[in-house]
Amino acid sequence: MPGFVRSIPEGDDRERLTCADCGFVAYENPKVVVGSVVAEGGRILLCRRAIEPRAGFWTLPAGYLEMQETVEEGARREAWEEARARIALEGVLAVYSIARLGQVQVIFRASLAEPGIEAGPESLELRWFGWEDIPWEEIAFPSVRWALRRWRETAGAPLGPPALNPPEDPRGTRPLPQAQGL
Amino acid sequence: MPGFVRSIPEGDDRERLTCADCGFVAYENPKVVVGSVVAEGGRILLCRRAIEPRAGFWTLPAGYLEMQETVEEGARREAWEEARARIALEGVLAVYSIARLGQVQVIFRASLAEPGIEAGPESLELRWFGWEDIPWEEIAFPSVRWALRRWRETAGAPLGPPALNPPEDPRGTRPLPQAQGL
Repeated sequence: MPGFVRSIPEGDDRERLTCADCGFVAYENPKVVVGSVVAEGGRILLCRRAIEPRAGFWTLPAGYLEMQETVEEGARREAWEEARARIALEGVLAVYSIARLGQVQVIFRASLAEPGIEAGPESLELRWFGWEDIPWEEIAFPSVRWALRRWRETAGAPLGPPALNPPEDPRGTRPLPQAQGL
Repeated sequence: MPGFVRSIPEGDDRERLTCADCGFVAYENPKVVVGSVVAEGGRILLCRRAIEPRAGFWTLPAGYLEMQETVEEGARREAWEEARARIALEGVLAVYSIARLGQVQVIFRASLAEPGIEAGPESLELRWFGWEDIPWEEIAFPSVRWALRRWRETAGAPLGPPALNPPEDPRGTRPLPQAQGL
């Protein structure tokens, strides 16, 4: 970021990224990721990533929420962009914080609203995985594993309160080998 | 924002705020607001705002999540900053989208972890309100009303899945008279 320096703006209490030329303060805030565990008949939809980070690994349909979107709209848009899937959201399955990356992930439990899926431009391939067939070693991000486990815990039952981070990574600060974020 | 113009960066699909001088792209994403309905003995803690927008109106302890924070940490920090309250989070009560403002609000159900509260610099006054005494006409933001109603629906019962936006404002686009945002 050319010309940007870290300084504390007047009236603030922490350093912000500020343009040394024009004084513009680029406030950095955590970004919202929205995604879904889409299941049909006990099988879960995963997308093999066509793009970095973690190209070739399996993930949920998920991505950054855009301005002017609700979390529900964002989750449906991501399912469409990555899997050409029209999905029906049942409710919020999990809210994860990835402090290391400045992310809050809102993950829904969902099913197909219309039959048919097809890989979008960010997916190499789509597949419906039974629980026993999930390729745990080829999952793109830790939070995808967390969400899949949470889905399994609640499968077939009414949704309770959303899971928060699991005990093994309560702040979302633990990078896995090679993992680079969702 | 001096020097900033709207244009579509290469490889993107929508307009972003870009510095005409240095090319820096200031991606705008929704911000995360974290807050809590803190209750003790059936009474709810509200803070009378010392600052704009909506100075003088009542709100929940809530504010923007910072980088490197989890949603739980942010909610606890805001309760401390605004009410000098040490709180215990029970779970996520609601996830609201305010598309008009580019906000996602994660609201917890909470209680005091230690006795004692005191107005912080952003609060004129604090008060514990019984349900019948809540000053509905002096509530700062629509989503505070939503969260209070949701708290009432779930009071004394285990938390279910979080509420999403209510039917009267499913996208968070309806400004109330004089309301300017949470």
